[in-house]
Amino acid sequence: MATSGHPERKVIEGDGGYILEDVPHLSDYIFNLPFYANALQDNPAYSVVKQYFVHVDDTVPQKVIVHKDGPRGIHFRRAGARQKVYFKADDVKACIVTCGGLCPGLNTVIREIVCGLDYMYGVKQVLGIEGGYKGFYSRNTITLTPKVVNDIHKRGGTILGTSRGGHDTKKIVDSIQDRGINQVYIIGGDGTQKGASVIFEEVRKRGLKVAVVGIPKTIDNDIPVIDKSFGFDTAVEEAQRAINAAHVESESAENGIGLVKLMGRDSGFIAMYATLASRDVDCCLIPESPFYLEGPGGLFQYIEKRLKENGHMVIVIAEGAAQELLSESSNQVDPSGNKVLKDVGLWISQMIKDHFKNKMIINLKYIDPTYMIRAIPSIASDNVYCTLLAQSAVHGAMAGYTGFTAGLVNGRQTYIPFYRITESQNKVVITDRMWARLLSSTNQPSFMNSKLIVDNNKQEENSSDEISEKKENGAI
Amino acid sequence: MATSGHPERKVIEGDGGYILEDVPHLSDYIFNLPFYANALQDNPAYSVVKQYFVHVDDTVPQKVIVHKDGPRGIHFRRAGARQKVYFKADDVKACIVTCGGLCPGLNTVIREIVCGLDYMYGVKQVLGIEGGYKGFYSRNTITLTPKVVNDIHKRGGTILGTSRGGHDTKKIVDSIQDRGINQVYIIGGDGTQKGASVIFEEVRKRGLKVAVVGIPKTIDNDIPVIDKSFGFDTAVEEAQRAINAAHVESESAENGIGLVKLMGRDSGFIAMYATLASRDVDCCLIPESPFYLEGPGGLFQYIEKRLKENGHMVIVIAEGAAQELLSESSNQVDPSGNKVLKDVGLWISQMIKDHFKNKMIINLKYIDPTYMIRAIPSIASDNVYCTLLAQSAVHGAMAGYTGFTAGLVNGRQTYIPFYRITESQNKVVITDRMWARLLSSTNQPSFMNSKLIVDNNKQEENSSDEISEKKENGAI
Amino acid sequence: MATSGHPERKVIEGDGGYILEDVPHLSDYIFNLPFYANALQDNPAYSVVKQYFVHVDDTVPQKVIVHKDGPRGIHFRRAGARQKVYFKADDVKACIVTCGGLCPGLNTVIREIVCGLDYMYGVKQVLGIEGGYKGFYSRNTITLTPKVVNDIHKRGGTILGTSRGGHDTKKIVDSIQDRGINQVYIIGGDGTQKGASVIFEEVRKRGLKVAVVGIPKTIDNDIPVIDKSFGFDTAVEEAQRAINAAHVESESAENGIGLVKLMGRDSGFIAMYATLASRDVDCCLIPESPFYLEGPGGLFQYIEKRLKENGHMVIVIAEGAAQELLSESSNQVDPSGNKVLKDVGLWISQMIKDHFKNKMIINLKYIDPTYMIRAIPSIASDNVYCTLLAQSAVHGAMAGYTGFTAGLVNGRQTYIPFYRITESQNKVVITDRMWARLLSSTNQPSFMNSKLIVDNNKQEENSSDEISEKKENGAI
Amino acid sequence: MATSGHPERKVIEGDGGYILEDVPHLSDYIFNLPFYANALQDNPAYSVVKQYFVHVDDTVPQKVIVHKDGPRGIHFRRAGARQKVYFKADDVKACIVTCGGLCPGLNTVIREIVCGLDYMYGVKQVLGIEGGYKGFYSRNTITLTPKVVNDIHKRGGTILGTSRGGHDTKKIVDSIQDRGINQVYIIGGDGTQKGASVIFEEVRKRGLKVAVVGIPKTIDNDIPVIDKSFGFDTAVEEAQRAINAAHVESESAENGIGLVKLMGRDSGFIAMYATLASRDVDCCLIPESPFYLEGPGGLFQYIEKRLKENGHMVIVIAEGAAQELLSESSNQVDPSGNKVLKDVGLWISQMIKDHFKNKMIINLKYIDPTYMIRAIPSIASDNVYCTLLAQSAVHGAMAGYTGFTAGLVNGRQTYIPFYRITESQNKVVITDRMWARLLSSTNQPSFMNSKLIVDNNKQEENSSDEISEKKENGAI
Repeated sequence: MATSGHPERKVIEGDGGYILEDVPHLSDYIFNLPFYANALQDNPAYSVVKQYFVHVDDTVPQKVIVHKDGPRGIHFRRAGARQKVYFKADDVKACIVTCGGLCPGLNTVIREIVCGLDYMYGVKQVLGIEGGYKGFYSRNTITLTPKVVNDIHKRGGTILGTSRGGHDTKKIVDSIQDRGINQVYIIGGDGTQKGASVIFEEVRKRGLKVAVVGIPKTIDNDIPVIDKSFGFDTAVEEAQRAINAAHVESESAENGIGLVKLMGRDSGFIAMYATLASRDVDCCLIPESPFYLEGPGGLFQYIEKRLKENGHMVIVIAEGAAQELLSESSNQVDPSGNKVLKDVGLWISQMIKDHFKNKMIINLKYIDPTYMIRAIPSIASDNVYCTLLAQSAVHGAMAGYTGFTAGLVNGRQTYIPFYRITESQNKVVITDRMWARLLSSTNQPSFMNSKLIVDNNKQEENSSDEISEKKENGAI
Repeated sequence: MATSGHPERKVIEGDGGYILEDVPHLSDYIFNLPFYANALQDNPAYSVVKQYFVHVDDTVPQKVIVHKDGPRGIHFRRAGARQKVYFKADDVKACIVTCGGLCPGLNTVIREIVCGLDYMYGVKQVLGIEGGYKGFYSRNTITLTPKVVNDIHKRGGTILGTSRGGHDTKKIVDSIQDRGINQVYIIGGDGTQKGASVIFEEVRKRGLKVAVVGIPKTIDNDIPVIDKSFGFDTAVEEAQRAINAAHVESESAENGIGLVKLMGRDSGFIAMYATLASRDVDCCLIPESPFYLEGPGGLFQYIEKRLKENGHMVIVIAEGAAQELLSESSNQVDPSGNKVLKDVGLWISQMIKDHFKNKMIINLKYIDPTYMIRAIPSIASDNVYCTLLAQSAVHGAMAGYTGFTAGLVNGRQTYIPFYRITESQNKVVITDRMWARLLSSTNQPSFMNSKLIVDNNKQEENSSDEISEKKENGAI
Repeated sequence: MATSGHPERKVIEGDGGYILEDVPHLSDYIFNLPFYANALQDNPAYSVVKQYFVHVDDTVPQKVIVHKDGPRGIHFRRAGARQKVYFKADDVKACIVTCGGLCPGLNTVIREIVCGLDYMYGVKQVLGIEGGYKGFYSRNTITLTPKVVNDIHKRGGTILGTSRGGHDTKKIVDSIQDRGINQVYIIGGDGTQKGASVIFEEVRKRGLKVAVVGIPKTIDNDIPVIDKSFGFDTAVEEAQRAINAAHVESESAENGIGLVKLMGRDSGFIAMYATLASRDVDCCLIPESPFYLEGPGGLFQYIEKRLKENGHMVIVIAEGAAQELLSESSNQVDPSGNKVLKDVGLWISQMIKDHFKNKMIINLKYIDPTYMIRAIPSIASDNVYCTLLAQSAVHGAMAGYTGFTAGLVNGRQTYIPFYRITESQNKVVITDRMWARLLSSTNQPSFMNSKLIVDNNKQEENSSDEISEKKENGAI
Repeated sequence: MATSGHPERKVIEGDGGYILEDVPHLSDYIFNLPFYANALQDNPAYSVVKQYFVHVDDTVPQKVIVHKDGPRGIHFRRAGARQKVYFKADDVKACIVTCGGLCPGLNTVIREIVCGLDYMYGVKQVLGIEGGYKGFYSRNTITLTPKVVNDIHKRGGTILGTSRGGHDTKKIVDSIQDRGINQVYIIGGDGTQKGASVIFEEVRKRGLKVAVVGIPKTIDNDIPVIDKSFGFDTAVEEAQRAINAAHVESESAENGIGLVKLMGRDSGFIAMYATLASRDVDCCLIPESPFYLEGPGGLFQYIEKRLKENGHMVIVIAEGAAQELLSESSNQVDPSGNKVLKDVGLWISQMIKDHFKNKMIINLKYIDPTYMIRAIPSIASDNVYCTLLAQSAVHGAMAGYTGFTAGLVNGRQTYIPFYRITESQNKVVITDRMWARLLSSTNQPSFMNSKLIVDNNKQEENSSDEISEKKENGAI
């Protein structure tokens, strides 16, 4: 085994440029850890399954656009049940915590961790930590059984409650130890996964037999490496409703402008996909694509042109767009460490109204469907996705893996080391095909002068290839 | 280049077991075919795109579960715009035809072929062939422009109309020649793709410069190789509505049984995914999993057990299930060559009622939502999928490829030779993980005795690995 | 007081042809019944309400189309809280039973009886009788509290379960006596209300202080006197989904016929209103309007004409239509005493297919959304309707009224004597304006020859004026 | 005929206190106006209708809660087809205009006026005036035919466009004269109906044979006399979606507050009915019920109490609530003359956040679904309502009536003189039963001290009885 670079990273190399970025295992730091036969082999549901268990060598490439003679590149360990497990069912005491903002599918993930542990492995002790990381310090927890979670996937939100911030590593790991918890399932975004990572480090430092598993949650789809995050398709679907309303409002008024703000603090995926799915949008503004208001090639000029041509238009703006234009930007951060954004929708509404005040009559209607989108239950395809994700997480923890995030890579469930998830953010690459498709569908200007294009290309060259590649694939 | 086996097949081999199953090109049989620079490079929307064009060597592996030292296996050519095109925009005369049953997303595919040809390549002449293959013989066609198709993606069905059968290769190719058509987009299922294949052969035999492109359509998801067919997620989503109704009906009656028939002639994917997404289903019956009614381990015994435990239950049955039990099976075929199935829903309703007649009171409610599912517009994620699929098809035809199906493989758009799509059917592998998940979620019996299991395993060993692998991935 | 006619009927006459058809009161047969001040006057929510209590003389006319000098006609007692109540909160033991088929809003009615009794009057003892009338004989009942019923209005069906038939008056009243029940809320249709009526007679005969209250439930809207039944608007709304699907299917096929069967055993209201709301229907067939298939002016001729004109059509048929044409009509009845109908949808599909077999190609798609419509939760307007209906019922029982049905008459909640509800059925009057509107919107033939018109007019003359009048009003 | 009071008002009195508030007729000021037999009698759809035409003496009482010996009160003329019409089909040139904000059902009303004129009376010339009253001065109009309007009822908004203000009576009547228009259908709210009234006066002054017909449109349901306005049920239905989201958001956060702003400038009907239909709302704030923030019995105290009890709550606030609390009220008016309201949702969010800042952690999520509600297509029951309303308007104009509003009174279509509609506003009467029901369902405080109650009762005594009565009936 060839381990390279960063000491804690488990990197295995093979022929033809094959690289496996492996995840930690409890046995890495606990020696002589006993293991057991996987109980699934006796489960009637699985009795007819040939080769149910994932082969120990199964891996999934990060990059699937390949050349005949190209290198094989980075791979991740395939998720799934293993023949050997490192926990006895009766000894497992699992806990689940949800952190950050709401996202469709949270309850499905909770349900399927609980049901997966029980139905597949016979694990009966599962605790729900209430209200995010903070809940680790509170006295109460929720007892989670298949019966308790039976219908929760039909409801939006999270039955565990959630919050931002509140992360105190030492206190959390103390609480884990005090309660005798040995599997920790942490569902949350970027900041939450970083928190999971330091929890894992502390657990390892203390030498605890505790599997720490991250499940990436971000309605913005801004987590790198994975194909897309759960709830994303639901969010794009629900966003159609707001765009339709904006379209109707704009068509019914003289020089009507329907303006819809969609989620996306740093990444414009929801805005981009909602625009592509709808086809009623004339302009889509995202954080990744800087734009300007005044002058030739600017937004105001484009609005004027569209209104003169069509008499109405729809603009979609991601919440994180145009932040550089909001002058007195406050640099505030919320308890999760996310920058507090000004409401770009209210701001740009005002800017547009001011600009056209004495030039032409416009009728601008601003719609902010954010909380209506976040709070709905997940659609069927997201439900199935959440199920597989939760079951992968469960299989991984039972097999003794830890310090990993369960995630879909090229259509396969995998285990990804934390650092891969937290060291960058997934963003729309505006020099890539998907954004070109959008520009072609809206006919909006690129808001780029030659200087910007050059800069962007430079940035692009530095970005990892796989990110650029994923954009192509998108939500499919 | 090493071409092996079947004379018409273009197979290219490389190091490490790399195999490319390539698709035909017009230049394969027309010599000295002129080519042109792709107009996209001058399109403002694409001007900022770095390396917009797909690299000539880009391919996508069929199999993405790999081992460190395993062979690289079969690959397909990546879809996308090429630097060289083999048609001048003004010379293109394209036609689109839709065949077979309705499927959500048909209108989106039509829309995006028309808009893709126009916006990306400046192609203005697109004809709609009315009512399936038969429409080639009729005098009239529909003129398709971006304006005509602008809003059709919001409606279910197909604006072109559709029908089964009516395939007369010679007459169709005559019609193509007579009308001066040089790009043929054929949207349809299994039988339709076979038809496209023979049209392509005839076109090649006549030496015509006509690109024949298949776009696979099957609400049942029974087309092999590709990740999933368009409209599938929409169908599973809409099926939830029927399952919910069945659940409510069954809960409100004494020994209530809610029975839902879903699509799936030969493949139970919709039934399986709808069951997994819903979690309200107690029994899911599909064509791939034979079952029996009477005796220990049979359906009646399971129903009785469930009703005694819960007082109600929901059964989902795919339309093609239990065909071997319908004794006087008529062997009729419809004009597409599909076997005419007896209505298994009505049949099994009667069987269950008869069985329990003098044993216990039951209240069975039968719901057949088939036409309500087929006729709805596609959800947002399917809309985006259809867009990329249609654009891939257009890029391929413009680049001179022909005799191929556009399809998503491991999350990437590819060009797949017809024979790969038509030589087998995608089926639920009941000895695989996904079906085990379903059994575990419903707790239904496997309806298998040891003999069946052995048989099945044999069958499984013969099935190609990639099919088994895809099941794992499912609708994600 | 002038009591006329039928001995048990309380009819009060006044000037100008004023007639009040009053409802029984416990004090009619129990003498010296004590009464109490209504607790509502101390309820904070009602403290600011001026004149909260309904005036003892408030009545509502059945007929609101009046002439300057016309007689005033029949009136019903207005529903609402009375100053005097005849039950102490602590003494009340209420029960609720739901009978017959599902109907959107059942759970809302249950919820609001329970909450109304508790929140308005402080009544704590409410039992749910399980599974319809039969449930009176079973040992178990469901304890109903505001907490238990809190969210049930968001679910379809009835949490109490339901069944048809099972009515044994003596056993039911024995059970009422044995359990010490003194308020009985019976939710059900025609047959159920007749059952409620005989229960009331038996209760009166035994001299019990038990209020027997009917709440009319019929998705078909076939209950006379009242404006419309709860759940009706929800059913018409949901029926649009099936009609839309039929429209899409028919448009996408050559000579496509979309056929939708809707509820309506004896009354075609759902079919008529769904047709009027949709505007996509070419032919609406209901029980009240006989039609014929063959020959001039017949259905086949009309179908052929429409297909030749438009290439497709949608037919809506009520389940009770054309029963006289189903030759070997079986005269079977179900346990509620309703005639078992043959599936007219399957029958007419076959007849149409047979007729056109060798004449022209048609593509008929048959959709039966019955159980999907019945099982959905009620829309908001039905929710509010159910709330007022349930509260009216509660106010009536607390005020000592019995032997009545709560019902909306000309937009006002009233108490209606049972006989008025059970002695006839509400039907579409095909010689009235609403049906003419429908004919004008579909352009379908009237299927009437002069003989039929004469007969119908005769029948019409005998029908009570108020029915004819209500049709005008419809679902508004 | 006894005409009393106001010279232009046509008031007819009869026995028993019967009063008919009649509407103007063209023959009132144009003498020897010829009339014709109604073409409907030859229409096949109406051929079987017995007594199709409305009896000339048919009227509808405004008040339907009556006493045995009470006076009969005010009546309105029943709407519907008359035997005599005052226009020849070929001579009719009708126009339709929509004014003010969007409301579900606008397109259905437009569609049914066009189709009603054509199908029922053979009128072929119908113009659409674009963009509200202003459109009368523009050169262009839209030609409206049954074909043009065929599918518009499935879309939200108005195909004619709309605007506020722009009313110049003289110019509008000039335009009517210049274009030879003789039937004017004006769809709009309060201000618009006042505009229609002065147009009618000018038309009468000029002695023109032009029927001026108002169709009341107000999503707020604030138009007096009529039962409810079209689109209201749709708005309440769609509001459920926002309330559900607020409920989910509030439940998932520590001390979560979901705040939903709903339409209602001066009248809280949507907020009240949406609250009653949902049952998830803890506090409903409307313009009619003043409230205060600080101190005992104030909003902040109630919020604190609810959060301590339940941990979360939902507040619904009508847009016009609390205006007296917004100190620096600007007294601005929009072009329709409506007071420009500050966004009470943003204001109260800030007030709540400020209050709890250093007291307790709260998580407030504010949802403003206004434009998403306004822009949806109408539900089925509103579609049928719009159809009858439009047909009533058409029958009235053809019969020579003018200067009237078509409106539903006690479930019957009637013709109401303009002054009745414009002289007051429909408001929630907070000393009435419906508001008491709401208070009882939310358990919120009445925000009333004894002084307020006294004042309110005084106000109430002055309000007309029929308004108080209507509240009882509500949206049913």
